[in-house]
Amino acid sequence: MVPTRVAVFGAGSWGTAFAVILADAGCDVTLWGRRPGLVQAINTTHRNPDYLPDAELPYSIRATTDAAEAADGAGIAVLAVSAQHLRKSLTAWAPVLAADTVLVSLMKGVELGTDMLMSDVIADVTRAGPERIAVVSGPNLAGEIVRRQPAASVVACADTTVAERIQHACHTPYFRPYTNTDVVGCELGGAVKNVIALAVGIADGMGLGDNTKAALMTRGLAETGRLGVAMGANPQTLAGLAGMGDLIATCSSPLSRNHTFGANLGKGLTVAEAAAAMKQTAEGVTSCRSVLDLAERHGVEMPIAETVVRVIHEGVSPQGAVKELMSRSAKPELR
Amino acid sequence: MVPTRVAVFGAGSWGTAFAVILADAGCDVTLWGRRPGLVQAINTTHRNPDYLPDAELPYSIRATTDAAEAADGAGIAVLAVSAQHLRKSLTAWAPVLAADTVLVSLMKGVELGTDMLMSDVIADVTRAGPERIAVVSGPNLAGEIVRRQPAASVVACADTTVAERIQHACHTPYFRPYTNTDVVGCELGGAVKNVIALAVGIADGMGLGDNTKAALMTRGLAETGRLGVAMGANPQTLAGLAGMGDLIATCSSPLSRNHTFGANLGKGLTVAEAAAAMKQTAEGVTSCRSVLDLAERHGVEMPIAETVVRVIHEGVSPQGAVKELMSRSAKPELR
Repeated sequence: MVPTRVAVFGAGSWGTAFAVILADAGCDVTLWGRRPGLVQAINTTHRNPDYLPDAELPYSIRATTDAAEAADGAGIAVLAVSAQHLRKSLTAWAPVLAADTVLVSLMKGVELGTDMLMSDVIADVTRAGPERIAVVSGPNLAGEIVRRQPAASVVACADTTVAERIQHACHTPYFRPYTNTDVVGCELGGAVKNVIALAVGIADGMGLGDNTKAALMTRGLAETGRLGVAMGANPQTLAGLAGMGDLIATCSSPLSRNHTFGANLGKGLTVAEAAAAMKQTAEGVTSCRSVLDLAERHGVEMPIAETVVRVIHEGVSPQGAVKELMSRSAKPELR
Repeated sequence: MVPTRVAVFGAGSWGTAFAVILADAGCDVTLWGRRPGLVQAINTTHRNPDYLPDAELPYSIRATTDAAEAADGAGIAVLAVSAQHLRKSLTAWAPVLAADTVLVSLMKGVELGTDMLMSDVIADVTRAGPERIAVVSGPNLAGEIVRRQPAASVVACADTTVAERIQHACHTPYFRPYTNTDVVGCELGGAVKNVIALAVGIADGMGLGDNTKAALMTRGLAETGRLGVAMGANPQTLAGLAGMGDLIATCSSPLSRNHTFGANLGKGLTVAEAAAAMKQTAEGVTSCRSVLDLAERHGVEMPIAETVVRVIHEGVSPQGAVKELMSRSAKPELR
């Protein structure tokens, strides 16, 4: 059997780790990177010194800075750049992608300005139909993936046959992908979890315990589910790997930037101080406003996301914010 | 306004912590305990030296060993004994409970032999109708509750008016109860989480990471949801505080007996060694078989619960069990 040719665009940690999965699953993988130095290092040392220095990559993975070379013959193109750079990058790559290439997003976020999910941006730029756009999302910390620790994930595409094709391309003894047709639900889970992780970080920084953390995660996912339903998603997707699963992994990991940022606020740092304490920006800090935009546009109440926006952008103290959340009127759990 | 009279039967850690919530919410609370020494200590020192030695209890809480005295005038009776002792205890108390007293279960488990949920046992013993039987369940670690750290929970009763009455009786600035009409869903969440916590503990003990843990928790809750649907529950209840929330708090807490037991197995101890290493039994070790009984009776596939039973009762190694779980055929996420 001829191996599936897959191009992975983006040699960051998750793009690289997913290339490892694909190669382990028997695909013929080309990894596109922007910087010649990194691409050369991957080709000569079979390591990604910038993002996953400790992992040895399969020798079969070839890296290139040439998008046309990466895309040549690829039936599947995996997109793994940062959410805010997708539009510009994909516009440049579109001419070299074949008209039947399936486009798989690994990205989590909402485009600033347009409030579009990544699949919307892909459709907008390439004019691809829903049967050519897929999302892979789940509790998949890259550092654990390249150690081949057991993980599960979701491959979502409106077209089940396409989802199954991708599932087959990335199924290994340590990586178990489930198919789902709910693209929006999967993307929302990944986008909103960063905002919830900020809230959980704030509570942890204030010294609150596991009850508070569990309540924030559960109610945060419940409000994500309400937004999802308003946007056409299946609420059960949010209760799945791309929703609950990803949220748990993010809130458990000591490396989560969103959690760390929130914890610094909870300990009493100002927003400026918390930002200065970090090398990279925390995605939720920028995207919480977009999430709230979406909620308002769809007429959905998201008290936890709103509280995060108030703390980060409107100067409300974490203490005041927790008090506000808890003193809301008594409610039924399901609506 | 005359305060609501509430009798709490069971002076263990959760019964005592819930009595604190009720007293803080303005109820007139009597706490029944089995042992005269503990009851006297509560009345004289306003502490529970056996279960929550560090917490000062509200002076208004009166403890007694006399069930009739505890029940006298109580419109709400809260039941907080161990799951396997409920039938015997409640049979003794039934004669002193008024015919219109609402019975609230704080217990999590399945009765061995009958595979009944706690609400079933209550109905069986007292012949009370569904409008008199309620459940309180959620991420509520007792030690954090008595420190008045923010927590949320679910009050479930088939009759919404009754659920709201209980909600009102236990709503404080730090404890936020939501109502739900899905009693079975709430109870299943609490009963099965101990089995999932065993699986997560096994993975942690084997040195697996947060991806594995998040996948086990999410897929464990998904199979609980399938059982719930077969038993008439709302799957969204399992995605709520009594399902996902309780599971997260349990798996986060270093004090969870189920998690500790599983971790010892994952590190290579035998079941007998793991049992010997603990003072108290881990609930999931006994109830995993009942959960699997329920699954089989309702024709539901529960691969994670089945794996736990195989490791604990059938001598399968944790390593082999994880391999088995991951090598199942590729599947859709939602069914």
